[in-house]
Amino acid sequence: MTIEEGQDVLLYVNERKSWILKVEKGKKFHTHKGIVELDEVIGKQFGVELKTSMGLPIKIMPTDYLDHLERLARKTQVIYPKDIAMITLLANVRPGSRVVECGTGSGSLTSYLASHVQPNGTVYTYECREEFQKIARKNLEKMGLLGNVVMKLKDINEGIDEKDVDAIVLDMATPWQVVGIARESLRIGGRLVSFSPTINQVEKTVEEMRSKGFLAVKAIELIMRTYKVKANETRPDMVMVGHTGYIVSGRKG
Amino acid sequence: MTIEEGQDVLLYVNERKSWILKVEKGKKFHTHKGIVELDEVIGKQFGVELKTSMGLPIKIMPTDYLDHLERLARKTQVIYPKDIAMITLLANVRPGSRVVECGTGSGSLTSYLASHVQPNGTVYTYECREEFQKIARKNLEKMGLLGNVVMKLKDINEGIDEKDVDAIVLDMATPWQVVGIARESLRIGGRLVSFSPTINQVEKTVEEMRSKGFLAVKAIELIMRTYKVKANETRPDMVMVGHTGYIVSGRKG
Amino acid sequence: MTIEEGQDVLLYVNERKSWILKVEKGKKFHTHKGIVELDEVIGKQFGVELKTSMGLPIKIMPTDYLDHLERLARKTQVIYPKDIAMITLLANVRPGSRVVECGTGSGSLTSYLASHVQPNGTVYTYECREEFQKIARKNLEKMGLLGNVVMKLKDINEGIDEKDVDAIVLDMATPWQVVGIARESLRIGGRLVSFSPTINQVEKTVEEMRSKGFLAVKAIELIMRTYKVKANETRPDMVMVGHTGYIVSGRKG
Amino acid sequence: MTIEEGQDVLLYVNERKSWILKVEKGKKFHTHKGIVELDEVIGKQFGVELKTSMGLPIKIMPTDYLDHLERLARKTQVIYPKDIAMITLLANVRPGSRVVECGTGSGSLTSYLASHVQPNGTVYTYECREEFQKIARKNLEKMGLLGNVVMKLKDINEGIDEKDVDAIVLDMATPWQVVGIARESLRIGGRLVSFSPTINQVEKTVEEMRSKGFLAVKAIELIMRTYKVKANETRPDMVMVGHTGYIVSGRKG
Repeated sequence: MTIEEGQDVLLYVNERKSWILKVEKGKKFHTHKGIVELDEVIGKQFGVELKTSMGLPIKIMPTDYLDHLERLARKTQVIYPKDIAMITLLANVRPGSRVVECGTGSGSLTSYLASHVQPNGTVYTYECREEFQKIARKNLEKMGLLGNVVMKLKDINEGIDEKDVDAIVLDMATPWQVVGIARESLRIGGRLVSFSPTINQVEKTVEEMRSKGFLAVKAIELIMRTYKVKANETRPDMVMVGHTGYIVSGRKG
Repeated sequence: MTIEEGQDVLLYVNERKSWILKVEKGKKFHTHKGIVELDEVIGKQFGVELKTSMGLPIKIMPTDYLDHLERLARKTQVIYPKDIAMITLLANVRPGSRVVECGTGSGSLTSYLASHVQPNGTVYTYECREEFQKIARKNLEKMGLLGNVVMKLKDINEGIDEKDVDAIVLDMATPWQVVGIARESLRIGGRLVSFSPTINQVEKTVEEMRSKGFLAVKAIELIMRTYKVKANETRPDMVMVGHTGYIVSGRKG
Repeated sequence: MTIEEGQDVLLYVNERKSWILKVEKGKKFHTHKGIVELDEVIGKQFGVELKTSMGLPIKIMPTDYLDHLERLARKTQVIYPKDIAMITLLANVRPGSRVVECGTGSGSLTSYLASHVQPNGTVYTYECREEFQKIARKNLEKMGLLGNVVMKLKDINEGIDEKDVDAIVLDMATPWQVVGIARESLRIGGRLVSFSPTINQVEKTVEEMRSKGFLAVKAIELIMRTYKVKANETRPDMVMVGHTGYIVSGRKG
Repeated sequence: MTIEEGQDVLLYVNERKSWILKVEKGKKFHTHKGIVELDEVIGKQFGVELKTSMGLPIKIMPTDYLDHLERLARKTQVIYPKDIAMITLLANVRPGSRVVECGTGSGSLTSYLASHVQPNGTVYTYECREEFQKIARKNLEKMGLLGNVVMKLKDINEGIDEKDVDAIVLDMATPWQVVGIARESLRIGGRLVSFSPTINQVEKTVEEMRSKGFLAVKAIELIMRTYKVKANETRPDMVMVGHTGYIVSGRKG
């Protein structure tokens, strides 16, 4: 693969340090260890190694969707990849699925859902804060995933426009308040999945789902341990993200 | 949705008890609480409730992919849904991706990968035990996912036939032995993801991936806690699956 | 150490199988692999190995406090050793401490507290169910720990008789109801520690402790992972006790 | 309890901010929110509240052992309270026990062991780095626990002087190298407990203990989750100490 002008590339130093940049004529990039002349790489093969003015080696790599998702996930208030992956599985999001999401936030979960309903499914994503919708649209555009997304500026408490949808995914402060609305919008057997940081939200949502006739209602939590691996010195990392949130799921009966 | 003869349906009693059955004329189903005449449901709507001869209510629900995956996952030696979802994310498996998997096993991970490369991607799945390949083929057929899968009866230690693939996923006893082979088969920036139950496998695989020039090599573990949720009595379940395996991931540099 | 008649001994087969028995003349013990004549060991040294009639080797070991505690802990409704150890630390139970415990239960936590206040401290343990008090008394007697324990058959909701105690430990269904009573009984700087299985109990107890002026109020949970260790095959155990309870602690301000 | 000159007191602001200070005539203490005149408290009762020059309220509390232990534990390289409590339980350290510890480090584990062997037991603690022994001696003196401790400046690899001890506790880089030495020093049925940060140390130590005839060899890990508790907003803390170390235990057969 040849690196072209105008293309996004990943500048990789090590497991903790990397950047995504657009390759442009005359562009210089300043690191903590000197400058790199980015236009040198035009016409070279991906995987090529540059050196900064102070000798730091930098690999030029192609970027992919996961690079963008991981960058989004590092920002606050964004749902983590481990939870995005599990929510998508528990909502049974498949090629062709019609999925409602609330709220859009910065669009990271939307992007994952969108790529999993391809080629002919749709994610209807609700958000009532216009500034978030703008950010999400920009992110989805960058990832090339707007084609399968319908963005709605609307409070889901006022109703869901779509009927007979396959799945509804909630990432909002008061999910229990929209369980009834979600039920009306789902097809029989459709999946409702909700993500919440506090156990009190879980309790209210589970109770409400049961009282509204949802089946197979479950609450889980995924805890991710990262490891420091080295021959004869392997152990879990000492500092850890101890909690992101709980996932509640169930099925319209 | 009307229930038709010949269709698979889910007989749902509660969160712990449900079965998948084909609706057939004259079929009876025996539960611990009496018999149910299954052909009664033909022509009814999904969501209808039957009663067994002893009065146990049973909901008739449509089945979906997740039902099949969860059933597969309950059998021994099968990778868990939480890990399947995370491996798929870490391998950056996308619509159109070309993915190599080894080994096929019973095809549960294969099925998830296959549905995520749709419409035009392919999963090349290697397995050297013919009896497993047969089981996997049957499972994939039932899920309607054979269209995006190429099944190979071959030991991956003898080489991977495909070149420039986007991702390679390993679920085998000695993943470190094929890191070099995997590298040759991957495109620059492609992802290698390996799942292993022991920490020793992780140590060897990580060391080998680093020595072979893989970037962003990481080892993680997902621990899933399930909760018993009830107003004023909410707590984690007392018995838990404490460990399934570790996930190692990296990228061809 | 010579084995004497009338002494308790541990018959050890392996990590999962062992029994505590009293050595008596003429006593035979039946295992799944044959009979062992227990009086053979009288006069021998601890560590001696017997063989059952079917050839199973059994080591004869001295018993200690931990053997008894672990046996108690395997029964239902008993607090686990990991929690007993942490509660004792967080309550700052020391030689000479005056500690109030409620409820006594089967006396496992009582026994640990009792041995830690020796030589001149006292554990005042409240229990309103007479049958539990009897069981606990028998257990404490067997462990030789009655000397530092005062057993009370009384509901703590009706008041704690002791004043200026150093610590109060609660293992009861409604700890938040006695926070005020506990406060009156504690000395300034004294510690209140409460163990509860549900998060709702934790929430109520923490809120009540804060509103009653307790300082440094904290809630924690200890999760114990056990490992299957073997050269090149080391991993966490697959089945695990996922939850026992939460520990709340604070200090009278 | 009256506050006296020369006494250590705890200045408590909130759950995250507190200091231990000696009360002295004329002493002023500078906080981020103004100065407090410490000699004002002489002759007052513990629990009294002072105000800094900028109006910050500070409670004057008695100090206890746990305050000192928690302060020690916050420094690097020190074993955590949860592990200290569990090691002490697993080593079956009791009033009167004779315990060998290696290495002394800063004396935090030593202090806990020492107070649990009181009144007539002894902790023999080995350390080969003189500067650590000095720090530990100072800490133990401050806690009033030197009476039950014998401090030894010696490498345990050269042998343990004591025989027939009840328990040996190891917190060192290469515990597997001294398993044989530990065995010779233990009485039959005595307990060996080792704490290590890496899984490789665990594997070597467990294998060595089994090959040297230790019984009931087990490896565990304690994971402590802390909770943010507030009515309707309760959840685990987001940042967490993900790993401290593993505990291996067994018994001389």
